[in-house]
Amino acid sequence: MDKTKRKVTIVGTGNVACHLFKVLSSVKSREEWETVIVNSRTLEGLPELSDLILISVKDDAIPEVALRLIGKGKTVAHTSGSVSIDVLKGIAKEYGVFYPLQTFSKKRELNYKEIPFFIEGNDEQAFKTLRELASEISAEVFEADSQIRKKLHIAAVFACNFSNHLVSIADDLLHEEELDYKVLLPLLKETIGKLDSLPPREAQTGPAVRDDESVMTIHKEMLRERPELQTIYQLLSDSIRNLK
Amino acid sequence: MDKTKRKVTIVGTGNVACHLFKVLSSVKSREEWETVIVNSRTLEGLPELSDLILISVKDDAIPEVALRLIGKGKTVAHTSGSVSIDVLKGIAKEYGVFYPLQTFSKKRELNYKEIPFFIEGNDEQAFKTLRELASEISAEVFEADSQIRKKLHIAAVFACNFSNHLVSIADDLLHEEELDYKVLLPLLKETIGKLDSLPPREAQTGPAVRDDESVMTIHKEMLRERPELQTIYQLLSDSIRNLK
Repeated sequence: MDKTKRKVTIVGTGNVACHLFKVLSSVKSREEWETVIVNSRTLEGLPELSDLILISVKDDAIPEVALRLIGKGKTVAHTSGSVSIDVLKGIAKEYGVFYPLQTFSKKRELNYKEIPFFIEGNDEQAFKTLRELASEISAEVFEADSQIRKKLHIAAVFACNFSNHLVSIADDLLHEEELDYKVLLPLLKETIGKLDSLPPREAQTGPAVRDDESVMTIHKEMLRERPELQTIYQLLSDSIRNLK
Repeated sequence: MDKTKRKVTIVGTGNVACHLFKVLSSVKSREEWETVIVNSRTLEGLPELSDLILISVKDDAIPEVALRLIGKGKTVAHTSGSVSIDVLKGIAKEYGVFYPLQTFSKKRELNYKEIPFFIEGNDEQAFKTLRELASEISAEVFEADSQIRKKLHIAAVFACNFSNHLVSIADDLLHEEELDYKVLLPLLKETIGKLDSLPPREAQTGPAVRDDESVMTIHKEMLRERPELQTIYQLLSDSIRNLK
């Protein structure tokens, strides 16, 4: 049987779109899938009919871009963590969500095999198509409805967005001594590295978890001219003690 | 000239003590330094006179252990981030602090070369001795008085202890969907990995930094039965917006 390649079209030119294009153009999936990428504004180069269209644009732009793709894909999916699958109703018979839980930046090399992909389909066929493609990229492919994706998103806000902000705060404090956050990087990497083998609750260290009142008093005194940081310090220390 | 090895004695059997013993027994410094480790309670095997004694015990125990080491070391130092150098006054003519900014766990391999060491000496000779030893282990050796060490410690609490706790919170939230924090690990590693090349303020992503009110409202609604988490969410989101 002469095997025809399936056609995947990525719509978008942001970091997620570019990373997906790069990995799909390089993995062995090339034998089965042929990948093109088009600008969401011009749609220049859009194939007459794709087997799968992945819409990878800003959340707010998804409905408008989707409307211009009616009839252009057998399956159409978006790549957003926080947008419902229903936004694609009526765009294609098969539709769904293809959500990689990762932060994508230009110039960063990633180990795609480890990135968890969360897949949702409006029916079994859509789900199967999306899972097949995700499995070409990653070893970690899960089914996840919109409820689960919402939970993943808020968890990522706590674990990643807020943690990054805490490093900004540390950076500010260190600048007062002409140091910066870079001295903390080996410690930060090891803090995360430990979590491969130890759950965060067991990995918790620091004055709050060992109820070291004298150190916490010194720290709050050091922050007396930064009431906002003092409040964050108190609240997170209390929260650590409540979790014990 | 016949070169005699200098003798380093590590007092303590905790994670920091064991890691220091391991690295000092393995690096090329063996040609210049001879390392022994003794239990802080029994002091069994303590040499009559060491060139350098490193006291690596719990903060509270340092004064008591130090008192039993009077006259036993040409230079005596402790390895704590938050204890003043003055606690060692009178223990030896030369004394100081030898502080590695890292979290040490059993069974974890570390790249010692990258670990920043912060050194303080009561005089030039103590500082020189401690800096020489630190330089055998690491490429990142800095002078730091007690003021700077205190700042490093509070910065590490924000960046590492509190971040670990935020991963515990994320873990809790994910358990409601029968997932756990491990799905976040590639994202967490990349969040920290990015900081090699991008300062945290520029690396900040998420709903707060892009003023995405609709997502933040959904998230706070999701946390309505967890008022403590709702407060943390609000406070850190406000703090991200204030830093913009």
